Amino acid sequence: MTNKIVYITRRERFNAAHRLFREDYSDEKNLDVFGKCSNPMWHGHNYTLFVTVKGPVNPETGFVMNLKVLSKIIKELVVDKLDHKNINLEVDFMNGKLASTENLAVEIFNVLNNALNEFENVSVHCIKIQETENNFVEYFG
Amino acid sequence: MTNKIVYITRRERFNAAHRLFREDYSDEKNLDVFGKCSNPMWHGHNYTLFVTVKGPVNPETGFVMNLKVLSKIIKELVVDKLDHKNINLEVDFMNGKLASTENLAVEIFNVLNNALNEFENVSVHCIKIQETENNFVEYFG
Amino acid sequence: MTNKIVYITRRERFNAAHRLFREDYSDEKNLDVFGKCSNPMWHGHNYTLFVTVKGPVNPETGFVMNLKVLSKIIKELVVDKLDHKNINLEVDFMNGKLASTENLAVEIFNVLNNALNEFENVSVHCIKIQETENNFVEYFG
Amino acid sequence: MTNKIVYITRRERFNAAHRLFREDYSDEKNLDVFGKCSNPMWHGHNYTLFVTVKGPVNPETGFVMNLKVLSKIIKELVVDKLDHKNINLEVDFMNGKLASTENLAVEIFNVLNNALNEFENVSVHCIKIQETENNFVEYFG
Amino acid sequence: MTNKIVYITRRERFNAAHRLFREDYSDEKNLDVFGKCSNPMWHGHNYTLFVTVKGPVNPETGFVMNLKVLSKIIKELVVDKLDHKNINLEVDFMNGKLASTENLAVEIFNVLNNALNEFENVSVHCIKIQETENNFVEYFG
Amino acid sequence: MTNKIVYITRRERFNAAHRLFREDYSDEKNLDVFGKCSNPMWHGHNYTLFVTVKGPVNPETGFVMNLKVLSKIIKELVVDKLDHKNINLEVDFMNGKLASTENLAVEIFNVLNNALNEFENVSVHCIKIQETENNFVEYFG
Repeated sequence: MTNKIVYITRRERFNAAHRLFREDYSDEKNLDVFGKCSNPMWHGHNYTLFVTVKGPVNPETGFVMNLKVLSKIIKELVVDKLDHKNINLEVDFMNGKLASTENLAVEIFNVLNNALNEFENVSVHCIKIQETENNFVEYFG
Repeated sequence: MTNKIVYITRRERFNAAHRLFREDYSDEKNLDVFGKCSNPMWHGHNYTLFVTVKGPVNPETGFVMNLKVLSKIIKELVVDKLDHKNINLEVDFMNGKLASTENLAVEIFNVLNNALNEFENVSVHCIKIQETENNFVEYFG
Repeated sequence: MTNKIVYITRRERFNAAHRLFREDYSDEKNLDVFGKCSNPMWHGHNYTLFVTVKGPVNPETGFVMNLKVLSKIIKELVVDKLDHKNINLEVDFMNGKLASTENLAVEIFNVLNNALNEFENVSVHCIKIQETENNFVEYFG
Repeated sequence: MTNKIVYITRRERFNAAHRLFREDYSDEKNLDVFGKCSNPMWHGHNYTLFVTVKGPVNPETGFVMNLKVLSKIIKELVVDKLDHKNINLEVDFMNGKLASTENLAVEIFNVLNNALNEFENVSVHCIKIQETENNFVEYFG
Repeated sequence: MTNKIVYITRRERFNAAHRLFREDYSDEKNLDVFGKCSNPMWHGHNYTLFVTVKGPVNPETGFVMNLKVLSKIIKELVVDKLDHKNINLEVDFMNGKLASTENLAVEIFNVLNNALNEFENVSVHCIKIQETENNFVEYFG
Repeated sequence: MTNKIVYITRRERFNAAHRLFREDYSDEKNLDVFGKCSNPMWHGHNYTLFVTVKGPVNPETGFVMNLKVLSKIIKELVVDKLDHKNINLEVDFMNGKLASTENLAVEIFNVLNNALNEFENVSVHCIKIQETENNFVEYFG
């Protein structure tokens, strides 16, 4: 019950369309580099997002941070912007960036770490995004 | 080892974009009926497909049907047409149909049941499609 | 797109406390029949509920039934009454009944089937409740 | 709480080695029919077994059947004979039979249905065996 | 086969009741801080516990530590004390502590790390507790 | 989109037979140390392999490394050697080593880290092998 450092993780989900391609590549080069992920008609995924926050346990509440509060922040700043959206065309924090899972993890980390600045003692430790059951990425800042 | 009826199921996966809407609806009505699934910029899913085939156990092989053969048929006739594709725009057997999971299950059932006609004794029992971890549909013909 | 019968399933979750026991049994008999599930101090589970509804596909929407509507009905009539509650003491439709998963499935079936009476053509096909990763029950009415 | 028919399922697991082959086939024919599953040096799986039992709910206990009792029967008659064993060489009820998942499901059904004869009102409804995350079989007797 | 450091993890499960509240808070304040988790009638979870132990690989056995031995220690010192119990009222190592998942992870870490003192070279690396499919905590000492 | 360090993970699967034993032990001692895993007739598992690679995000592609390339390397150098094989008898990189999951993780790490030498900037961060749903090991080099 002392202020030991504990890591808490909240899982959220969003379903989105995307496409991997570069405008400065020909269609052939896009296909060569990005494979079927470059399909001009789009494809999509059920993305699973794991947000891990690190901080001391508050001895009054037994919490690192109230997970309802964390979930509300993730929903407003991340999930509502991505869910049932087109990542290439409709997501402000991905504007001008390749819609890869790596870039998505980095940008979500930055959005949420900024948002947690107002909470003393806690910070984002890791953003993990699972794109398919076989592929996931992690970013630790 | 007699010819008892056994059900065998093969799971396959595909990632696709889609949109729920009717051209004869206004944008408002589409939003009202289909919610965020009507987003004109598309969204997508990791679809999981379960194909259940029913038949007697072949006493020579111990198989209802060779699952490698079944998997190959599903890949060629269903998965390759849907994976990393736009269900509304690029899938022949969904042409002119609302891209709902219900309709997808019915059409996949028909495609595969036709294909299995050449195999004596076996038939498609059920097509199950999982769209998200909370929603799935089943069609038994 | 004709009115083929399709089965749609919505998964919902609730976390609740319960205890298996009979007031007319001694503590010893309760322990003998119900094992550690009879602990007078309660224990609990993350219950997973699968509600399967059966009906024809509406050719206008491609839906058997709007899953958002189904989810709202399940939440109001079932999940809100069970989630973070004590099944023995706080759930009206379990009043006076042993808090077994079998009884829970039967009562949830009845509650939801009544509620779906107002929807033409659809009915509850199955209530499945998963109590642990090793145990689940199904009731088909 | 009346005697409605409910289906209860117990999941158990076992890890075993096996090989698909016929002694009356050449090595080439075994490879042709059974593929890499015919490897003479064996291979193995984490098998997951789902035993579904059907019966009325006992109004005194709220149970179709005590799952601890069911689990004990499955362990003694099925899991202990298969777990960490070679299905082709060491399992009495598979003696002389091709070690396919189909045959395994049929034989486990028979073993357990016999064992449940002593319980009034209940019977085995289905044996489901998951061999890999992509393949499973079901036998209903 | 040299003494490389490897991390081994054993998963165990327990089902328990709990309640988040402070006696020095009013009911209103408990509800405000802890939400529906403060329900005075209790609620419960299927907790999943992951115990990660770190150490060199023993060249004689190929093991960091025998997982059967580790599992037995976890069962005796942790799982048997929590399973089908009330975490607030019946678990000695949680006595006087808020029954949050964070506190549970810290206390389980301490219990198991003490127990592993008798084993040369190995120590507890992480205790991870999954409370729901959306929430988990990790403690590294 | 700068060269932040991101971790990408590819999951692959293989089904294999193995046995834990030492030739210099008696059967009794093998049974005592390795339990039923020492069964001379073999047993097997569905192994799940997670390969985590670490490196900067390439600003041109948005990738740490093309996952198709990574998957191809893992398949050729690891999965094809293990899948539907006997780990004790048929796998070159396990030759002369106890077929424990710990040793398997160390050897797969070495094989893949060598293979990634030709790729600038990336390296294997972790090999995780899940042997059953309750047991897994991790090796970080």
